[in-house]
Amino acid sequence: MEKTMEKIVALAKNRGFVYPGSEIYGGLSNSWDYGPLGVELKNNIKKAWWKKFIQESPYNVGVDCAILMNPQVWVASGHVGGFNDPLMDCKECKERFRADQLIENYAKENGIQISVDGWENSKMKQYIDENHIPCPSCGSTNFTDIRQFNLMFKTHQGVTEDSKSVVYLRPETAQGIFVNFKNVQRTTRKKIPFGIGQIGKSFRNEITPGNFIFRIREFEQMELEFFCEPGKDLEWFNYWKDFCKQWLLNLGIKEENMRIRDHSPEELSHYSNATSDIEYLFPFGWGELWGIADRTDYDLKQHQEHSGEDLSYFDPNLNEKYIPYCVEPSLGADRVTLAFLCEAYDEEEIGEGDVRTVLRFHPALAPVKAAVLPLSKKLSDSAFKIYENLAKLYNVQFDESGSIGKRYRRQDEIGTPFCITYDFDSETDHSVTVRNRDTMEQERIKIEDLESYLREKVEF
Amino acid sequence: MEKTMEKIVALAKNRGFVYPGSEIYGGLSNSWDYGPLGVELKNNIKKAWWKKFIQESPYNVGVDCAILMNPQVWVASGHVGGFNDPLMDCKECKERFRADQLIENYAKENGIQISVDGWENSKMKQYIDENHIPCPSCGSTNFTDIRQFNLMFKTHQGVTEDSKSVVYLRPETAQGIFVNFKNVQRTTRKKIPFGIGQIGKSFRNEITPGNFIFRIREFEQMELEFFCEPGKDLEWFNYWKDFCKQWLLNLGIKEENMRIRDHSPEELSHYSNATSDIEYLFPFGWGELWGIADRTDYDLKQHQEHSGEDLSYFDPNLNEKYIPYCVEPSLGADRVTLAFLCEAYDEEEIGEGDVRTVLRFHPALAPVKAAVLPLSKKLSDSAFKIYENLAKLYNVQFDESGSIGKRYRRQDEIGTPFCITYDFDSETDHSVTVRNRDTMEQERIKIEDLESYLREKVEF
Repeated sequence: MEKTMEKIVALAKNRGFVYPGSEIYGGLSNSWDYGPLGVELKNNIKKAWWKKFIQESPYNVGVDCAILMNPQVWVASGHVGGFNDPLMDCKECKERFRADQLIENYAKENGIQISVDGWENSKMKQYIDENHIPCPSCGSTNFTDIRQFNLMFKTHQGVTEDSKSVVYLRPETAQGIFVNFKNVQRTTRKKIPFGIGQIGKSFRNEITPGNFIFRIREFEQMELEFFCEPGKDLEWFNYWKDFCKQWLLNLGIKEENMRIRDHSPEELSHYSNATSDIEYLFPFGWGELWGIADRTDYDLKQHQEHSGEDLSYFDPNLNEKYIPYCVEPSLGADRVTLAFLCEAYDEEEIGEGDVRTVLRFHPALAPVKAAVLPLSKKLSDSAFKIYENLAKLYNVQFDESGSIGKRYRRQDEIGTPFCITYDFDSETDHSVTVRNRDTMEQERIKIEDLESYLREKVEF
Repeated sequence: MEKTMEKIVALAKNRGFVYPGSEIYGGLSNSWDYGPLGVELKNNIKKAWWKKFIQESPYNVGVDCAILMNPQVWVASGHVGGFNDPLMDCKECKERFRADQLIENYAKENGIQISVDGWENSKMKQYIDENHIPCPSCGSTNFTDIRQFNLMFKTHQGVTEDSKSVVYLRPETAQGIFVNFKNVQRTTRKKIPFGIGQIGKSFRNEITPGNFIFRIREFEQMELEFFCEPGKDLEWFNYWKDFCKQWLLNLGIKEENMRIRDHSPEELSHYSNATSDIEYLFPFGWGELWGIADRTDYDLKQHQEHSGEDLSYFDPNLNEKYIPYCVEPSLGADRVTLAFLCEAYDEEEIGEGDVRTVLRFHPALAPVKAAVLPLSKKLSDSAFKIYENLAKLYNVQFDESGSIGKRYRRQDEIGTPFCITYDFDSETDHSVTVRNRDTMEQERIKIEDLESYLREKVEF
């Protein structure tokens, strides 16, 4: 069985996980809408993150900050000055390219080991010229100079459209946390070490989005900024790196499909003491899922400088004032949704040349926890009562159309871990047959025990 | 006890419900960030909506669509052409006003019954001139003509900033549902009547936002579009109107603080068969919370016309094709959060001139479900274990600093329904004292029964 993006995208569209955005109008380049199953899956992933990173953590609390912020925030963070893509146009065919990608693709095709991280525009232009890298579109080597293109979406707030009214759609959720560091510390009376987490939309005007929901312009992040004493940052960096990895493993990502890439000293941002990416093996190759960065005191210092507010913390244990160091595990909600979809996808031969498609989601992530299936339409009323009771606890489905076998397959394909069949015996023995998605084994369960049966299986 | 916005806003800021957005940079006009308690409160409200409108409903499913959509969506919906505020400037002092508000405020001050809904600009200008309505700022009566100001935030997607790259931040979540009507119907195999719900951010470039989080430019909506057979729309309109009202009542909004305002025939949009607003009595007066509208087949017809896609539905029961009618209950998540905050706020005299501030949230909405309080620091380790176990189920707090009385007050002020005190007897009788926020009564509960005790109370 080959696991391809084509198969996964097709299943996602056909079963209501993800649709192309604005589809009836021909779409909007690389925008996607989550359908009825997709929104449940993504919400379950967000809940699983919130549960482990916020709710159960004695260290961390959550926030939910506005997408539109004072533009000075993005001056301080460096996004106004430095959040750019290096663009160049082919003078012949007028196509536009990212210079760094042009070089990297050229290098890859020619088996050259190279990283352009940190290269100046002039250096990239020189490399392209010297190697006669051709335009991927028309083959000519006649490019314009490189110019910087800022990735933030810009809009205007208020009735006038001038430079004073410019606001940006946030390119990351992290800065909402940094500017609220004092507010949160003061109102929660939290002591260092503590963290602040956030789930929310961010926007980046990427030139080359792609790979389904892997790289999109409008995306959702789950970020934690964990504040600690300077000097203890590497300890916490390792703590959170392990914590993130464990979260993925516990939710069913296999060890062999995951790798951790530690950034080399040359690759590190000037302020970072350590950075690692957790990567996942997508059908299109390894892709970054989670960036874990030791950002030292860089962000709080920047904001202290630009805002004039004192962002230091008085440590009562050390009897000392300092600007806390910060460790940031930053995860893309859409990409990790795609990772869970890819990981779950399976085609299983079940004898006689028959193959079933099954999404092997962790029950906590499965969009539908259980399907209630009356064996005959005569049993619908009683079965529907079971559905209604379970619907108070979980997203469940009721399906009475088609053979039981067909209904099982439909549920397999959307990853429902349990199919509950109500049959004629159920009327007298007050029990149902519960069929397991993965093993296809069936067991007889008392109706009154269904709730606790599911609760135990679905727990995360 | 007077319930004022000042008190509620102050409590919200000081206890970490809501902070001014970008505060360290002097803010960004009327933007707000939800703090650690605010995000829990708002998430609980969103969960309670999702549970009743989606999860438990045999009719409805959810979606989560992109904020950035193909601009043609907003042409079809009428937002590009008609989603405007009528603005006029005072020629003397250069202040800018909404003509409709100028008239309505003038009318209110002079005891005149008037509604400007549907007035043309020329009619408004004439009314202002004839009545010599003065500039609220400088008193002169020298206004410019009225011009239309579109309320959609505009941005550019891609590398060029021309008219072809314009995209809008959605001003409502509803249109994401309409354009996916076919996708959802096809992939879920739902039959009419069924509904599609969505929770998400919308943006309106309001000229005069205000009243804390009541009217903000970036806000969150919880919208349901319920599709039914033409002719059955008024029946479903009444069903959902009652359903919405019941949802508010069940979550603790008192009947006397709520009213339903049915739109008069003159007030109705040309395509609407009926519209009602559920209003709430905020400290600043009655304000719209929930708009319930029978929108007939207007939206699907518009999109069918503009997209060229067939958006009709074949009804197997009637053996007939039609464009479904649609009933839309649309709720603002931020405003209903404010309503629950206002409703919960109480100051109670508890003898000897003492007053306690208490937020009487429904337990399902309370940001913190329970606080675990060891009576002495010697008991912290055992009490912390209780905290850790409950944290797997709910957002709970552990507080060991200050007298028990002070800790109770802190929890009252943030609306925690249960305080669990671990005392020296707990070590031997394996029980704790649970103090009720509202009655202040205490009962002794076995530690092993805490989970089921809370589950029952917190249920919604």
